[in-house]
Amino acid sequence: MTFAGSAPIAITPGDAAGIGPEIVARAFLEAPHAMRGCFVAGDMDSMRRATGVVAGGVSLPVALIATPAQVWTAPPRCVPVLQVLDAAPLPAFGVVSPVAGRQAADCVTWAARAALRGEVAAMVTAPLHKEALAAAGVSFPGHTELLQHEVAVHLGVPVDRLPVRMMLANDELRVVLVSIHVSLLHAISAVTAENVLQTLRIAHDSIGAGLHRPPRLAVAGLNPHAGEGGLFGSEERDAIAPAVQAARALGIDAHGPFAPDTVFMRARARDGQPGEFDAVIAMYHDQGLIPVKYLGVDKGVNVTLGLPLVRTSPDHGTAFDIAGTGKADPASLLAAVAMARQLAAARAPD
Amino acid sequence: MTFAGSAPIAITPGDAAGIGPEIVARAFLEAPHAMRGCFVAGDMDSMRRATGVVAGGVSLPVALIATPAQVWTAPPRCVPVLQVLDAAPLPAFGVVSPVAGRQAADCVTWAARAALRGEVAAMVTAPLHKEALAAAGVSFPGHTELLQHEVAVHLGVPVDRLPVRMMLANDELRVVLVSIHVSLLHAISAVTAENVLQTLRIAHDSIGAGLHRPPRLAVAGLNPHAGEGGLFGSEERDAIAPAVQAARALGIDAHGPFAPDTVFMRARARDGQPGEFDAVIAMYHDQGLIPVKYLGVDKGVNVTLGLPLVRTSPDHGTAFDIAGTGKADPASLLAAVAMARQLAAARAPD
Repeated sequence: MTFAGSAPIAITPGDAAGIGPEIVARAFLEAPHAMRGCFVAGDMDSMRRATGVVAGGVSLPVALIATPAQVWTAPPRCVPVLQVLDAAPLPAFGVVSPVAGRQAADCVTWAARAALRGEVAAMVTAPLHKEALAAAGVSFPGHTELLQHEVAVHLGVPVDRLPVRMMLANDELRVVLVSIHVSLLHAISAVTAENVLQTLRIAHDSIGAGLHRPPRLAVAGLNPHAGEGGLFGSEERDAIAPAVQAARALGIDAHGPFAPDTVFMRARARDGQPGEFDAVIAMYHDQGLIPVKYLGVDKGVNVTLGLPLVRTSPDHGTAFDIAGTGKADPASLLAAVAMARQLAAARAPD
Repeated sequence: MTFAGSAPIAITPGDAAGIGPEIVARAFLEAPHAMRGCFVAGDMDSMRRATGVVAGGVSLPVALIATPAQVWTAPPRCVPVLQVLDAAPLPAFGVVSPVAGRQAADCVTWAARAALRGEVAAMVTAPLHKEALAAAGVSFPGHTELLQHEVAVHLGVPVDRLPVRMMLANDELRVVLVSIHVSLLHAISAVTAENVLQTLRIAHDSIGAGLHRPPRLAVAGLNPHAGEGGLFGSEERDAIAPAVQAARALGIDAHGPFAPDTVFMRARARDGQPGEFDAVIAMYHDQGLIPVKYLGVDKGVNVTLGLPLVRTSPDHGTAFDIAGTGKADPASLLAAVAMARQLAAARAPD
């Protein structure tokens, strides 16, 4: 398989004090074929430091490119970098840095705009550090909110007209989250019929486009035992069940609400057999992420659904504790690149 | 190994409209050695119906015993039953029945009292149906609360002086829950420093007794990313971290609070290797139960910690949809019997 001729994929390196740059460098070092057509939208100095961390005695040059299309003519077995940042001192590994937070956000903004202009087919984002973003005065807690803002500006619509949802997926389970980076108390108040229905619509459209058929969607309850008939909470009756009914009336193959503690097990594909459902709609961040991550974070991929661009990312954080040691595993990043390629292909005109 | 001479184990059959009686019958049919010393504290008619469901052409007699100790002289390859209920019509399978709810609770009450009197070494409880309990006017949502009440009456102390916690365990993960059968909104308000510390004390004592060393305990956060330094909620800072500090001052090997979406993966034992922790303290029902159940409910065991009796139960519900078909798997019940035996042995005087 060759990818030459298709649009390039931008990789944002994430917080330079974390493991982002080094997992990107290791991906290029260890899986050059899988990374064909990918380039780093970032900073030459930071990527040079990262290649030094991971390459050992092996030569892994960093090649400056001036446009995304130049990725196809970059030398083989190098890390193509498009310099999108102004020069700044490199942050120390493992320390929250406002400068690193700002630069990481700027790379994401650049890649989002390139994707919206059609210069890149997809963007794959290495992890941000949320405290560094906050220290930098970036008013978004993570990638999803930042991308939503960029798209809203690009389209000239208010952000609340651009509902997005986070999907986490690995080989055996897909979950789509009603809410993400808010306290659990706020997440409960976000479990409205409107938000659950919106999540079902986005999951139906996005997952269906990849599967080429309507996906079978399970909806988790919010409360233990999905409220046990109203004994432990009323959100299932008042918000979730009505959303499932409304979705079914729209032709969406929605089921539930189901007891949260068993619905993920039921949806899990194993031994080559599909689970009962193609995806589970989770009512809050950890409800969905605990099962996706339980078997290990090395293959999980985070996908932003609902936006007019393709964005995936690895399913782990900045791992400040091991940043700069070269120990970080690029497997989840490589899975994110592979999924970005698939999603971009599904969107490409025939 | 023989268990003769040790105290008997009472099995409560759970809601007779569900799969409880038939999994008990199947356990006696398929694993008679593992069930030695166990008897059903229930109803002859219901157990006869259950043996008819599971035994097919094989003979599986039901033997009436008059005292727990008679289990040792019951005929081999039978189901010993101690009749603790008054006669009543059998409920239909798969239908909520107030009579079945009341009778299921009465069996649990009988077994709890027998355990407190020392007539049984442990009790293993097949699943109740919470709507049936409520329909019967039973004022407890599940086993744990019912047992807590019985022990409080027995000891002559108020229920709030008898903190109990639910532990769920399988071969690879133990979780102990701060709260159980309450809405998620109420569960959040139960995340106080006092409740988290109490959970740590109970887990330390109970799990340590089985391991014969202080257990290494991880404490999950409540909010996404354990609050991300206060950005998504303050319970970690205000309640959970102070409880961990207080526990450590008491000599408890407590760690955290950790991000909920990865702490269970970190604690998971696999490939014969222990995980980073012996148990995880989960802040609410589904946070802990989702990972325990994710790989399947066939080996999970529910244990009530903190009471002066041994109680375990299988990690699944009444499964009304398959009750009466003989399809239900007794594996989790058998795991619960095995764990009850271990816990009873750890408590027995040398």
